[in-house]
Amino acid sequence: MNENLAVLLIKCPDRPGIVAAISSLLFRHGANITDLDQHSSDEAPGVYFMRLELQTQGLGITLDELRARLAEEVARPFAMEWTLTRASDRKKVALLVSRHDHAMLELLWEWRRGDLPCEVTQVISNHPDLGPAVAPFGVPFHHVPNSRDGRGPAETRMAELLRGTDLVVLARYMQIVSDDFVSRFPHRIINVHHSFLPAFAGADPYRQAWERGVKIVGATSHYVTAELDAGPIIEQDVGRVSHRLSVEDLRRMGRDLERRVVARAVRWHLEDRIIVHGNKTVVFA
Amino acid sequence: MNENLAVLLIKCPDRPGIVAAISSLLFRHGANITDLDQHSSDEAPGVYFMRLELQTQGLGITLDELRARLAEEVARPFAMEWTLTRASDRKKVALLVSRHDHAMLELLWEWRRGDLPCEVTQVISNHPDLGPAVAPFGVPFHHVPNSRDGRGPAETRMAELLRGTDLVVLARYMQIVSDDFVSRFPHRIINVHHSFLPAFAGADPYRQAWERGVKIVGATSHYVTAELDAGPIIEQDVGRVSHRLSVEDLRRMGRDLERRVVARAVRWHLEDRIIVHGNKTVVFA
Amino acid sequence: MNENLAVLLIKCPDRPGIVAAISSLLFRHGANITDLDQHSSDEAPGVYFMRLELQTQGLGITLDELRARLAEEVARPFAMEWTLTRASDRKKVALLVSRHDHAMLELLWEWRRGDLPCEVTQVISNHPDLGPAVAPFGVPFHHVPNSRDGRGPAETRMAELLRGTDLVVLARYMQIVSDDFVSRFPHRIINVHHSFLPAFAGADPYRQAWERGVKIVGATSHYVTAELDAGPIIEQDVGRVSHRLSVEDLRRMGRDLERRVVARAVRWHLEDRIIVHGNKTVVFA
Amino acid sequence: MNENLAVLLIKCPDRPGIVAAISSLLFRHGANITDLDQHSSDEAPGVYFMRLELQTQGLGITLDELRARLAEEVARPFAMEWTLTRASDRKKVALLVSRHDHAMLELLWEWRRGDLPCEVTQVISNHPDLGPAVAPFGVPFHHVPNSRDGRGPAETRMAELLRGTDLVVLARYMQIVSDDFVSRFPHRIINVHHSFLPAFAGADPYRQAWERGVKIVGATSHYVTAELDAGPIIEQDVGRVSHRLSVEDLRRMGRDLERRVVARAVRWHLEDRIIVHGNKTVVFA
Repeated sequence: MNENLAVLLIKCPDRPGIVAAISSLLFRHGANITDLDQHSSDEAPGVYFMRLELQTQGLGITLDELRARLAEEVARPFAMEWTLTRASDRKKVALLVSRHDHAMLELLWEWRRGDLPCEVTQVISNHPDLGPAVAPFGVPFHHVPNSRDGRGPAETRMAELLRGTDLVVLARYMQIVSDDFVSRFPHRIINVHHSFLPAFAGADPYRQAWERGVKIVGATSHYVTAELDAGPIIEQDVGRVSHRLSVEDLRRMGRDLERRVVARAVRWHLEDRIIVHGNKTVVFA
Repeated sequence: MNENLAVLLIKCPDRPGIVAAISSLLFRHGANITDLDQHSSDEAPGVYFMRLELQTQGLGITLDELRARLAEEVARPFAMEWTLTRASDRKKVALLVSRHDHAMLELLWEWRRGDLPCEVTQVISNHPDLGPAVAPFGVPFHHVPNSRDGRGPAETRMAELLRGTDLVVLARYMQIVSDDFVSRFPHRIINVHHSFLPAFAGADPYRQAWERGVKIVGATSHYVTAELDAGPIIEQDVGRVSHRLSVEDLRRMGRDLERRVVARAVRWHLEDRIIVHGNKTVVFA
Repeated sequence: MNENLAVLLIKCPDRPGIVAAISSLLFRHGANITDLDQHSSDEAPGVYFMRLELQTQGLGITLDELRARLAEEVARPFAMEWTLTRASDRKKVALLVSRHDHAMLELLWEWRRGDLPCEVTQVISNHPDLGPAVAPFGVPFHHVPNSRDGRGPAETRMAELLRGTDLVVLARYMQIVSDDFVSRFPHRIINVHHSFLPAFAGADPYRQAWERGVKIVGATSHYVTAELDAGPIIEQDVGRVSHRLSVEDLRRMGRDLERRVVARAVRWHLEDRIIVHGNKTVVFA
Repeated sequence: MNENLAVLLIKCPDRPGIVAAISSLLFRHGANITDLDQHSSDEAPGVYFMRLELQTQGLGITLDELRARLAEEVARPFAMEWTLTRASDRKKVALLVSRHDHAMLELLWEWRRGDLPCEVTQVISNHPDLGPAVAPFGVPFHHVPNSRDGRGPAETRMAELLRGTDLVVLARYMQIVSDDFVSRFPHRIINVHHSFLPAFAGADPYRQAWERGVKIVGATSHYVTAELDAGPIIEQDVGRVSHRLSVEDLRRMGRDLERRVVARAVRWHLEDRIIVHGNKTVVFA
């Protein structure tokens, strides 16, 4: 992890001169651009998206001063939505789980070996089962029981625990979260759905896939929005199946797919590679 | 192509002794088994599926006599649905197309190269456009205009042309065929749908996929049944996409996927590798 | 796991009547065949391979008696190499590791979740580092230092520890094992090599791949033989790369591939799905 | 195809200010940047690569004048290798083939339907066989016999035919071309090799793959250099195989892979998406 790295994310109406304005300002202040990726949507009027990595060691001003200049000289005239993030400011991540351990273990393991640049602050579960699996990682485990009647109190308790959290990952959390809960973390809750969305939204997707007789199954990671299983898709992956596989076989295979799609989505979010636009994502991976 | 090859396909209630009964009968008559694949469904009661390749050169009786023995000694007692097909009896295949040439050309190329063991007897289209593309292959091209009002007469004309046809391939035929037409060719019409079914059934699936922002698109080949886009799936394939791709880019990519899934489905059908069960397929590939 | 399941694996010269002989004998003794897969090699003279799953609850004799009948009535006349294994007799598996934890953890997770039907009896390492990672799984961890001079004593010590072991998995064990060691476990040592063999055999394959500028990298699981990285391949998997990835990125990606190929290979071995023939494998997956 | 599109490709030593210098110059002259992709190599000293799409309709000067300014104000000070190409200037492409038609037909078909932005000027073959397959496309077919003794005269004849050609595609041309021939078209000859290079370089790679018992086979497109099968790789693709497949099956499967990798490589070359650096490629796809 490069301690001098900062990432600039931009969304704005497309028009000539954006690259010139930003790169000139950065060059003037000694910020060296080491990566730049951009995309212009085909819609009319067009929308411009950019991700830019810059090195701050040659910067003649502070990062906050740079932010002020960007705001005034570029962001305002071009009507940008933007963020400028220092990579060394690790995001605080909480995992919400139920009884399945695979997605959670994948994330904890990648984090322990240094592959996920974040601070995992806690694991919250509506069941006590996974406590022992979390213990060796030295991460606090909170059991917050939940039920149809008790979702309100449970979410209140979770909201307290999650104060200051930058990213919530539903790592096979088998409860529906309320609109109110979702609205506390706009585009900052990542869910993994165990199907190739939009196919097989809803319950027990591997059984649905088995019953339809598909020849490929998948998994999907997406930002959670008010509408269930319909938020902006971040990543998907698939595996080939045949008539030989039972529903249980599909579930086992699916665990692999789920681990991969949630781990990639979380890494890309942590590295500021994702811009949400409407119900879709631009992923500069 | 082995001229002495025959293929036995079987579906029956699962119970002990099926393999012993068949293999003993075949051995007694000098039919050497060179490939055998079987599957038992997990349902209760179970269903047994088998595909068996046998060599007929050592056969002490005719193939018709063998069929009679099989019927009496094995198929009746085990309540089998079955076929025994000589590989050298090439199936007669007709292609139905509209204006897109890619699926049709893929099948014609593979057929000309000897990769599809069949006789392509004709191409029928509701548009005249593809006639010149068919001409170099020496296959008759029939233009049968179609319209909302005229589907009846068009299908009557097609039914005449298709008399004696073993397999009808809708190689991007952009018309809905009637239930009556479908019922003439039970499990003998293969369609290619340009999405990863059951996602994006219906019209313009690449636009639907683009609007939903999926990260993987697909194509599906399936047997046609009365319900649109809902028949037994034979094969699917997928390709990775990103925010950079336009609807037109997805269509271009999709053409590749469509060609692959239709070619595989047709080959497997021609080689008697597919058994339909309910709304699913067992594919011994 | 079905406690009444047994698996029959067979390799013999190809000739007519094999299926009939085996299936008749099994039927006579009440062993119900629930799965049967076979393959005949194209070589001359041909070689016949078969994997057969049978249910023992209806068996009128003991499994040992069945073995005796098979040996006398079928295996001897057809010159078969064969095994008949009860699925409930779990194989004893030892993992050999060095400092990388990913392949080991994948196997331990899957085993703890019940996805790998075996008994993991121990982890042996030439470094002490992974001891704490193994502890939560309740599996003994043995540190057996190794060095160029000390390979002899180290292997002697390992051979003692491994007495009674059915399968040794080199889960990124970064030492070359001696021919003598290999010969103690014929086709019972599985290694994972971090490249798409035969490309990039030898040291630091991800660097080799990066230097060659390939667009796809891979990983390979194979049985260990006397010749380094040249044993029968069991499974391979690949991932797409681009010029953007550093050697370190390839290594991170490769860890995913290595985990998958070693887990599949071990599962297939444990389920008696692999027959080695010459330097190749037949995998009835 | 956008008639106002131009593509700028750049390679130079990495240092601060490159983006600012180029984007400012382009903005000053009314050239709107619609796509920009860049890469900095990890080597020391670093190398900078950029591909930039610009729209010329608002340009206040001619493209040649823009080239002159770029050369003087940016390219010289930054020591750039660079090209600025108008997309409407279609490249002239020649296909060299032997007896296999699949790679050639793929390219001709994609070209006819408008998916390959180029002018296919001719097909040259050392065999007359494919003449009839080329005829329907309206492209001249030249039969230039070749032999071990006659390579010199054959290449002389081909060099005449190829005068003015921008890109030569060896679409399964089964002859080795001389160093002299290669040097006429530096990084402008694309070959498709029927294996996953560097595995199985040389003759009959599908047989080599079959004999090694790999579980995945591949195909590779690359620029031709003096050393056989060792030039910069542009694209690779793979397919999964099993013990059931014969060498002939691998060849059939491989034809699909070969078609895909050659078509992608040619498209990327035509769209100026490839920069060669040492023996590797940067592909801005």
